[in-house]
Amino acid sequence: MALRHARGAEEEIKARAQARIEEISALPVYRGRSVPLLTDLYQLTMMYGHFRAGKHRQRVVFDLFYRANPCGNGFVIAAGLEQVVWYLYHLRFGPEEIAYLRSLRQFPEDFLTWLAEFRFTGDLYAVPEGTVVFPNEPILRFEGPLAEVQLVESAVLTFINHQSLIATKARRIVEAARSDPRHPDAPVLEMGLRRAQNMDAAVFGARAAYIAGCAGTSNLLAGQSFGIPVVGTQGHSWIQSFPSEIDAFRAYADAFPDATTLLVDTYDVLRSGIPNAITVAKELEARGYRLRAVRIDSGDLAYLSKRARAMLDAAGLSYVGIIASSDLDERTIRDLILQGAEINAWGVGTHLITSYDCPALGGVFKLAAKEEDGVLQPCIKVSENAAKVTNPGKKKVLRLYVDGQASADLIALDDEPDLNPAEPLELFDPVHTYKRKVIQDYQVEPLLVPVFLGGQLVYELPDIAAIRRRVEESLAKFSSEVRRPINPHIYHVDLSLPLWELKQRLLHQMRPVRPQT
Amino acid sequence: MALRHARGAEEEIKARAQARIEEISALPVYRGRSVPLLTDLYQLTMMYGHFRAGKHRQRVVFDLFYRANPCGNGFVIAAGLEQVVWYLYHLRFGPEEIAYLRSLRQFPEDFLTWLAEFRFTGDLYAVPEGTVVFPNEPILRFEGPLAEVQLVESAVLTFINHQSLIATKARRIVEAARSDPRHPDAPVLEMGLRRAQNMDAAVFGARAAYIAGCAGTSNLLAGQSFGIPVVGTQGHSWIQSFPSEIDAFRAYADAFPDATTLLVDTYDVLRSGIPNAITVAKELEARGYRLRAVRIDSGDLAYLSKRARAMLDAAGLSYVGIIASSDLDERTIRDLILQGAEINAWGVGTHLITSYDCPALGGVFKLAAKEEDGVLQPCIKVSENAAKVTNPGKKKVLRLYVDGQASADLIALDDEPDLNPAEPLELFDPVHTYKRKVIQDYQVEPLLVPVFLGGQLVYELPDIAAIRRRVEESLAKFSSEVRRPINPHIYHVDLSLPLWELKQRLLHQMRPVRPQT
Repeated sequence: MALRHARGAEEEIKARAQARIEEISALPVYRGRSVPLLTDLYQLTMMYGHFRAGKHRQRVVFDLFYRANPCGNGFVIAAGLEQVVWYLYHLRFGPEEIAYLRSLRQFPEDFLTWLAEFRFTGDLYAVPEGTVVFPNEPILRFEGPLAEVQLVESAVLTFINHQSLIATKARRIVEAARSDPRHPDAPVLEMGLRRAQNMDAAVFGARAAYIAGCAGTSNLLAGQSFGIPVVGTQGHSWIQSFPSEIDAFRAYADAFPDATTLLVDTYDVLRSGIPNAITVAKELEARGYRLRAVRIDSGDLAYLSKRARAMLDAAGLSYVGIIASSDLDERTIRDLILQGAEINAWGVGTHLITSYDCPALGGVFKLAAKEEDGVLQPCIKVSENAAKVTNPGKKKVLRLYVDGQASADLIALDDEPDLNPAEPLELFDPVHTYKRKVIQDYQVEPLLVPVFLGGQLVYELPDIAAIRRRVEESLAKFSSEVRRPINPHIYHVDLSLPLWELKQRLLHQMRPVRPQT
Repeated sequence: MALRHARGAEEEIKARAQARIEEISALPVYRGRSVPLLTDLYQLTMMYGHFRAGKHRQRVVFDLFYRANPCGNGFVIAAGLEQVVWYLYHLRFGPEEIAYLRSLRQFPEDFLTWLAEFRFTGDLYAVPEGTVVFPNEPILRFEGPLAEVQLVESAVLTFINHQSLIATKARRIVEAARSDPRHPDAPVLEMGLRRAQNMDAAVFGARAAYIAGCAGTSNLLAGQSFGIPVVGTQGHSWIQSFPSEIDAFRAYADAFPDATTLLVDTYDVLRSGIPNAITVAKELEARGYRLRAVRIDSGDLAYLSKRARAMLDAAGLSYVGIIASSDLDERTIRDLILQGAEINAWGVGTHLITSYDCPALGGVFKLAAKEEDGVLQPCIKVSENAAKVTNPGKKKVLRLYVDGQASADLIALDDEPDLNPAEPLELFDPVHTYKRKVIQDYQVEPLLVPVFLGGQLVYELPDIAAIRRRVEESLAKFSSEVRRPINPHIYHVDLSLPLWELKQRLLHQMRPVRPQT
């Protein structure tokens, strides 16, 4: 898996990667942000402790992974790596940060002097954004000096936890919208800015939603920063600010004759909004334009959309779409579809942008190996709770495809020899080991790719369109049973035999210091 | 309520207010942020529509309020005004933002030229941060040109919704901690960075938590930005990175002899962690120091804390505190207290920083009045859902105290004459009008204070310590029945008779345009 390139090719890769991160760093949402102190105090106290004990340069491996899928989903869409790269690339302690740390009176000058010279010099391997991942799989794998890897834990977790959570929640909603047999292409539009947990949650949340398959966002800063299509027309206050609904509709259609959606629920959808929209649509037709859609933002969306559809069709306006919004999530959307609602696009706010029913992803960052006498030794974290025992050692993650379909993921030690897909491979459940299956003639995709090597960025961050495509391509290789939103099939994530044996050995060797009580 | 000062005094207020916002704008979390496009596209399309119709300068009044308390609480703690002031003070469209809007091909040049000159020129009255507020009370009241007030809706809602939500959730947790009769001063420490919905949620969430009564945060950027005390010691990886637990404890105590808390649950709390902590505490005593605390981060916190307390006490270490952390929220804290857990400080993460069980506050921004023929005319928004009918007109909010206790809030029209507390005042429930009470000899506190007048900042933003005091002082005037976390007493928020009569008149006059079907 080592990167083998001619020296010139390596330099070219670095140059392209660097040009790309400089471009990204100039985006409004990243530019000028001060983040070296976006960390927990205990990372700094531990760094200083290691520094003082002369252990800060000890080489360690840490894995970032999560233990349980959020929202009852069967997988997570990995997202947030761009933010991680941006953070690591710019991570420096300037005079202002050093002065603040000095003011805490916990850190001596020799440590602060060392900190002022701090650069990230480690390796980072990561799963590309937009990849489908599963519990316990390393999504990011850091290797480097203990003090460096320790410092970055908090911010890196924040970025990956947030964007992966929102991408996953958004995908649940997108899948719900696509389950409509009558309108399988109905787009989901992200409209949650005002209910987001502050600015970054709105902007990076809109990014994650777009990655996951939303068609656009109402958030202009997200549109500007990431090139996401922006959507939106008018709110109730527009309608209210005119003497009558038809005046408001006409004024809007005059301003945007080729991009008009009319909000029809301010007074009465069926007795006022739709009849007025039909009048304005006919006026637009007479001028050579077409009304794009009507939006229903309250009330019984199933009933109202069906009646509105019938009225529009009867008026010869079958081309006018119906957009629904009003506290929607994947459950209400699926239910509306089952009721035969006639919805051509879904505007989703609060539930998507906060992942309302599951607003945190529990990603963790755990020590997997540490250098002793020049050799990386695997580490394990035991726990009373068996699900919390970590997988030891420096690891790789392999996705195994049979006939183009993802069949299982295999977590293996990084230095295990490459698999030979011509030979049968026996996979077994790491807990219930009697559950076995044998595959052959499979394809192997290593999920972790090099991002930083020796502190040098070697990964050219993809653009958002490529990440979005990766989500679709990645998901297309999983069965609908894994993808379904409720009680999904549990996808196999197995351990290689060498990793499983190592884990068992360490578990049984583990002898915590116990006084004789 | 008009501000009456000699001209010199007015200028001095403005100068102080301006100096203060400049100081705040230099903080790391605010500095250099690009936010003019932190809005929904439809705000811009409506602005252009109004501009095109020549209505963009029409004077309007908008109220920001919420309809239902979050998390089953009986009130909300208003927070986020500092962010609103910062946003309005700096709101400009630069060449980059104009270029982006031009690229959308929806806006003609005359509008973009006008937008480049955009400044907020309106009035803002607001409830100071840290004030207890209730459903339907205007927390912010904007008055100004339609296009300006429209634009700011999205960002202002984001700031107020997020910070008020987290302050309210944090207060629930702080109140739970204070309900321990054995440890009524046990502080709550905010430790949620890694599970926050990205950077701003972490930093402004830590601010809101501190306002609401948390004693500190683990988040250094929040500490640096807002002067919040920072807390933290070591994580499990520190313990794991040493050959044994006692080595790890000793190394930490050597590095921070006067500020050591030891994490005791890596191997076994009672058989390893506490005995080792006792050893290290005795070693510290021999050097003239005192171990500050132990932290238990997993397992049965009730059982473990009681046993740990007994072991520490038996070793003569009754001064060593016990800090608990592990997926805590107000429910688990109250339950642990009922079980007699011996906890001296509570570390709270995910549930606080995301407001896990209620992750969005539904603040809205509604038209209350608009100028017609030079006069402000009250507006009402009707709805099938009676709870969503708005209160019309430009309003004030008065808190009425009897014997120093908050007795009721009164929403009144802004131009109603001042109340005369020497005379009896009859209050009545705005829905069930037979429910009446009469008060006399009461004190009146107007909750809305001027923040911007004619686009000029006239409000000197308080420091965070003053906001924090306001929370305590504000809450101390409410009964424990209003403050309790479950099934709280519904505090009276009544309408003045003139406002109630206006609302009834407008409701009955309301004749939506309805074709004869």
